[in-house]
Amino acid sequence: MTDCQEGEGAKTPMELYERLSVQGDKVRSLKTAKAEKAEIDSAIQLLLKLKTDYKQVTGQDYKAGCPPSENMNVSDNGPAADGTGDEDSVDPWNVSTTNAKGVDYDKLIVRFGSTKIEKDLVDRIEKVSGQKPHRFLRRGIFFSHRDMHQVLDAYEKNKSFYLYTGRGPSSEAMHVGHLIPFIFTKWLQDVFDIPLVIQMTDDEKYLWKDLTLEECHRFTLENAKDIIACGFDVNKTFIFSDLEYMGASPEFYRNVVKIQKHVTFNQVKGIFGFTDSDCIGKICFPAIQAAPSFSNSFPQIFGGRKDVQCLIPCAIDQDPYFRMTRDVAPRIGYPKPALLHSTFFPALQGAQTKMSASDVNSSIFLTDTPKQIKNKVINKHAFSGGKDTVEEHRKYGGNPEVDVSFMYLTFFLEDDEQLEKIRQDYSSGAILTGELKKILIETLQPMIAQHQERRKQVNEEIVKQFMTPRPLNFNL
Amino acid sequence: MTDCQEGEGAKTPMELYERLSVQGDKVRSLKTAKAEKAEIDSAIQLLLKLKTDYKQVTGQDYKAGCPPSENMNVSDNGPAADGTGDEDSVDPWNVSTTNAKGVDYDKLIVRFGSTKIEKDLVDRIEKVSGQKPHRFLRRGIFFSHRDMHQVLDAYEKNKSFYLYTGRGPSSEAMHVGHLIPFIFTKWLQDVFDIPLVIQMTDDEKYLWKDLTLEECHRFTLENAKDIIACGFDVNKTFIFSDLEYMGASPEFYRNVVKIQKHVTFNQVKGIFGFTDSDCIGKICFPAIQAAPSFSNSFPQIFGGRKDVQCLIPCAIDQDPYFRMTRDVAPRIGYPKPALLHSTFFPALQGAQTKMSASDVNSSIFLTDTPKQIKNKVINKHAFSGGKDTVEEHRKYGGNPEVDVSFMYLTFFLEDDEQLEKIRQDYSSGAILTGELKKILIETLQPMIAQHQERRKQVNEEIVKQFMTPRPLNFNL
Repeated sequence: MTDCQEGEGAKTPMELYERLSVQGDKVRSLKTAKAEKAEIDSAIQLLLKLKTDYKQVTGQDYKAGCPPSENMNVSDNGPAADGTGDEDSVDPWNVSTTNAKGVDYDKLIVRFGSTKIEKDLVDRIEKVSGQKPHRFLRRGIFFSHRDMHQVLDAYEKNKSFYLYTGRGPSSEAMHVGHLIPFIFTKWLQDVFDIPLVIQMTDDEKYLWKDLTLEECHRFTLENAKDIIACGFDVNKTFIFSDLEYMGASPEFYRNVVKIQKHVTFNQVKGIFGFTDSDCIGKICFPAIQAAPSFSNSFPQIFGGRKDVQCLIPCAIDQDPYFRMTRDVAPRIGYPKPALLHSTFFPALQGAQTKMSASDVNSSIFLTDTPKQIKNKVINKHAFSGGKDTVEEHRKYGGNPEVDVSFMYLTFFLEDDEQLEKIRQDYSSGAILTGELKKILIETLQPMIAQHQERRKQVNEEIVKQFMTPRPLNFNL
Repeated sequence: MTDCQEGEGAKTPMELYERLSVQGDKVRSLKTAKAEKAEIDSAIQLLLKLKTDYKQVTGQDYKAGCPPSENMNVSDNGPAADGTGDEDSVDPWNVSTTNAKGVDYDKLIVRFGSTKIEKDLVDRIEKVSGQKPHRFLRRGIFFSHRDMHQVLDAYEKNKSFYLYTGRGPSSEAMHVGHLIPFIFTKWLQDVFDIPLVIQMTDDEKYLWKDLTLEECHRFTLENAKDIIACGFDVNKTFIFSDLEYMGASPEFYRNVVKIQKHVTFNQVKGIFGFTDSDCIGKICFPAIQAAPSFSNSFPQIFGGRKDVQCLIPCAIDQDPYFRMTRDVAPRIGYPKPALLHSTFFPALQGAQTKMSASDVNSSIFLTDTPKQIKNKVINKHAFSGGKDTVEEHRKYGGNPEVDVSFMYLTFFLEDDEQLEKIRQDYSSGAILTGELKKILIETLQPMIAQHQERRKQVNEEIVKQFMTPRPLNFNL
């Protein structure tokens, strides 16, 4: 962390803390009252300014409900505050931050050069699709985009698009965080009635991990079952393994080679941080993740058309691949893919890192039993924003912004009003940590059980159907 | 060129010249008399020693028939002698030397770490195959190898092998030099009765040249006709385009990825001289040229077996790819491919460079008419080792070692005795340059005409047959 620095007009930590609390309340009440966007925005600007001041003065991040005198040990597992890491680290292989609320997504938007999803875009998606926006849109979980207005412009003129998302199958077990892009993609498929391709990057996992090709491909087939269990329409969805599809489609390889001709090592070094010691497989892989962004990679679906617009819903850490893709696209005569970016799903231990499929206690897995879910949430695994004693909690209230149980509820609890009431009650101290955890357990248990039930129905035959290159059923 | 340096016991240029002439004659007469190998070898050793001394004293290479007083302007087109280039430059994209006899292959063997094809290996190939060795073997055109004895050991124990060679289709037109590996590979296929795979690296040409994918693939199909016209057995030969086969064989791509995982950018930088400014396609391409060295890249032929030994006949400039391949092979559980290396086919303008398919006057093309052949050979295009006037030529004789017409005859004139007689008569001055050229023209014209006749028979249907992945007819 940086040293305390007192600037002009600096205030004491407690003065700043109080001004921040007031300003935070103001922003929330403006939002609840559905005030003018401009008014809300300027209130947020002041809030952010105060937070920056607070950080400068205290050397720590402001957290609602945590007065500055308190020693905020926000993380048992996150990276140590070593005086260097003021900047969040986000790339396709690592996500880390020292902030208990997680990555600073506003900063990330500036760094990555994407555009924030403002309310007007959410409203427009509602208008064009004729459907209530998904809770991930309502709650800013999908928070950033590229060219989404352009996609909607075309859609309104009856020019449709296709969806592309993917997964790196690094193990058999998927956790709830892995479902975020798929849950949202299924919603997009339903409301826009469009085709979808899902890339399983088993080649990538082979290149990056200590796994055999056979293991990676097996994980692809197992993960495909969990993905299919999200409810995708088999008539509109093509799931493919790189290790299979590369060898089944000359058109796909042609696009890979085209991209590889137009990207230098210098470029991938700059974007992905590759070094001279990296294997050449890693160095050329970005082209393989880029290729599905172009419709003629799938002649069986698009009949050789190269002009069908692609929209990619994905977590923001995948954006480097698609920044590269968008840079290459016009040079090889293809449209740039549009993007919708999600925040990261927090680990049970706190929002400093993404969850890890290799750490069984870092998340709720799709194979967890109701008892396992309960134990994970209760047994200290889920980082709490509550106070140490009931007395303190009742007095100061909890901090939902760093509380993992509350964060999980923002992902999975559908009812907006119920969620807002929980937030208020937890902040005020009316709800204790144990009660909050109980709500989460009761939300997760049936959700996971239903997923397991649907997954059971997905047999080898169904997986094969989804993974067979074939025409899909849609109108473009 | 290096400065003249006089060492201990140095002699005058003329003294050395005379000793060299005598020693050269001695070596030839020993060879003609089929003397003991040891005796010939020691005579060659002395000859090489004298040549080194001559170079040191005169700053020029010794050329039989060219006394040191003569200003030997050996090259109109080769790279300028700039005082730096004592070393030949040989890699898959460039071959150059300042020596009119061409690249110093003995030095190359040391640099590349391969093994010279000695007479005992040629004899052994004769014994094992039961056939007279091909003129390319008899004349040292295939001059270097890796593990060929091992291949023959196994073959003698009824463990067979397969052949792999290839071509980069950078234009429609192939020249006679391009046929060298194919002529020899066909001979190997015939005498050993083994399967053959031929890789057309159209992806490579797309990556390296200013060509479209479509052009590169069209060149593949056109070049395949010339290759087929060499007489390959359709039941034992599979020709494949990378742009097609990569998208038709998951097993091929799996091997590519395996290789790409086990080679770093540092390694390809060291082997191929890639830089950070090279596109990632070039950087990962070596793995694609390596993959056909492993039999399980062709399950339709070898039924998934990964242990079938591969033998690669190719020009020595392709060796860097296979040094890399041999380095990777044991680490991914595959046998190392064996190799047979050929010298380069000289350009008409002299042996300093390989011929270029883009310079129409640098070679005899497979599409040339008899008249074009005659004009190219006669009209000064073919660099001559003869003297400027008939008088001088009769007196000093010509120098077959730098004479391109004579070199071409060593490639294409089957009769050893006739060739030796021409060599002697030309060296002595009995045959004039014009007469030598006439012999070459009379050798090339029917050879090219016959090739054109055979190529005419190769229709699209036959190309398709050769290029369809399918079982081949052989016993391993």
